[in-house]
Amino acid sequence: MRIKIFSVGGTIDKVYFDKLSQYQVGFPSIRAILGSLPIAFEYEIESLLRKDSLEMNDADRDLIKAHVAAEPCGKIIITHGTDTMVETGKALGTIMGKCIVLTGAMEPADFKSSDAVFNVGVAVGAVSALPDGVYLAMNGRIFDPFKCWKNRHLGIFDEL
Amino acid sequence: MRIKIFSVGGTIDKVYFDKLSQYQVGFPSIRAILGSLPIAFEYEIESLLRKDSLEMNDADRDLIKAHVAAEPCGKIIITHGTDTMVETGKALGTIMGKCIVLTGAMEPADFKSSDAVFNVGVAVGAVSALPDGVYLAMNGRIFDPFKCWKNRHLGIFDEL
Amino acid sequence: MRIKIFSVGGTIDKVYFDKLSQYQVGFPSIRAILGSLPIAFEYEIESLLRKDSLEMNDADRDLIKAHVAAEPCGKIIITHGTDTMVETGKALGTIMGKCIVLTGAMEPADFKSSDAVFNVGVAVGAVSALPDGVYLAMNGRIFDPFKCWKNRHLGIFDEL
Amino acid sequence: MRIKIFSVGGTIDKVYFDKLSQYQVGFPSIRAILGSLPIAFEYEIESLLRKDSLEMNDADRDLIKAHVAAEPCGKIIITHGTDTMVETGKALGTIMGKCIVLTGAMEPADFKSSDAVFNVGVAVGAVSALPDGVYLAMNGRIFDPFKCWKNRHLGIFDEL
Repeated sequence: MRIKIFSVGGTIDKVYFDKLSQYQVGFPSIRAILGSLPIAFEYEIESLLRKDSLEMNDADRDLIKAHVAAEPCGKIIITHGTDTMVETGKALGTIMGKCIVLTGAMEPADFKSSDAVFNVGVAVGAVSALPDGVYLAMNGRIFDPFKCWKNRHLGIFDEL
Repeated sequence: MRIKIFSVGGTIDKVYFDKLSQYQVGFPSIRAILGSLPIAFEYEIESLLRKDSLEMNDADRDLIKAHVAAEPCGKIIITHGTDTMVETGKALGTIMGKCIVLTGAMEPADFKSSDAVFNVGVAVGAVSALPDGVYLAMNGRIFDPFKCWKNRHLGIFDEL
Repeated sequence: MRIKIFSVGGTIDKVYFDKLSQYQVGFPSIRAILGSLPIAFEYEIESLLRKDSLEMNDADRDLIKAHVAAEPCGKIIITHGTDTMVETGKALGTIMGKCIVLTGAMEPADFKSSDAVFNVGVAVGAVSALPDGVYLAMNGRIFDPFKCWKNRHLGIFDEL
Repeated sequence: MRIKIFSVGGTIDKVYFDKLSQYQVGFPSIRAILGSLPIAFEYEIESLLRKDSLEMNDADRDLIKAHVAAEPCGKIIITHGTDTMVETGKALGTIMGKCIVLTGAMEPADFKSSDAVFNVGVAVGAVSALPDGVYLAMNGRIFDPFKCWKNRHLGIFDEL
């Protein structure tokens, strides 16, 4: 099995800079996550953007869509900020013949209590098992981007 | 979505006892793993056995099979030792109408570098997405228990 | 042995809020650090402030000084932001008859790679061993607050 | 400041081997601990033994003593198993002109909940601050090896 992974930023990739006493979007955290585990599938990671997803615009989504559409690998995971993950999922909804799973994290992967490793695991399980289509893997569930939303109050995704 | 989880022991649940300077199989580590994450599905955990899987016998597998067969929930995860996970998977192969995913870990969940959280994530993604049947979720892949083996030399599962 | 611990905020106590996509100074992280370890000394933790140390003013330092001066326990650790730890150390320099050690962290204690646990350990070792006086315990060294500075470029404390 | 560090094994260095389903004493864990932290002192690590301390004998202690006596650096930390740390401390009691601090851990450094990082911090603080002599740094306290014991029932060191 082979998976192509695109990272576009988001909380999952946020790192802390003491000099500025603030967070910034760093390099793809999924590289360190998968690199430290006994993985038995092939994968390739490509960083497309390093943005907080609230700052992503239509041009960013066009860029992501173009890369996903041009990607020969049929199993694709995208690590993405949670705030506009639904919008990007919808924008990818017209791509046929590929299984595309978006995931991210509520806490940066660098945190001891981060959900990043678990969420990446769910995304890997989902992309291996699901038929072609676009899905979100968050909070241990698999969602249709056209039928879910991020409940910011509870900090979890839910069905519409 | 609702998942029933059975734990039967294995490396994933091993803890270290300084007094004896050795490890023993402890309580289900999946409880702490899921309990610390922002999960949006319902689950119930039941500990059936606390055994190193090399010490499991036919009576143990009959016990597991009876519980899985009697379980009304259609989505089932079993945390299990890796050495005989394939055998238990085969033993459950006659159960119809349920999606059953076995997982475990190469390193105890208490270790910083353990694959436990990731593997549980893969199992959750798999059990959400797969049709009824029995599967192993290890090393980021989903295996048919009748067509895989644990390569102890490499420390990973592989297809036959 | 008994140690009184005051927390006043700083990077060591910073937590991440996904809703705001920013960090804030949270509760004393030293409570969770010591609470999770096999400790054989008595201690009491009191939260005086929850401030980024760049935002601390003379009134804050007067408050800290009043509490330290009034504290009957002779061994005192203060967890503090690193940017003005030197200033607070100097302000406490006139207090006699107590061993006072300030420490903190370059990365929040919630981070996997944080220096918080190590630094708290150094502070505990230092406050146990040193004669009365005021000291900074950072980067594995013990400094006189009147003879050190934070090298923000290198991210470490150094002698003047 | 410069510290010479000798490692001789013990629980702090134990690693888990899935192939054998047991623990063994691995390489010096203090190397990874200090290597991952923003440290501002110089240090050198030398591995003398890789033994569970229950298996150490008089010849092992003679070896340690010879290396410590011949070491030109005046500040020495020894990472050691906890079960016979007191005996080794006593054996080093005749060495003059050096500050020697023994430490270790109740749980292997590879465990999420290990006391290893904290204990190494206490040892670093202690060796920086104490006068010449031999000490044990365990459970956040500094002990005289001739006046302490390991309470195996409670899992902590205590004064005699």
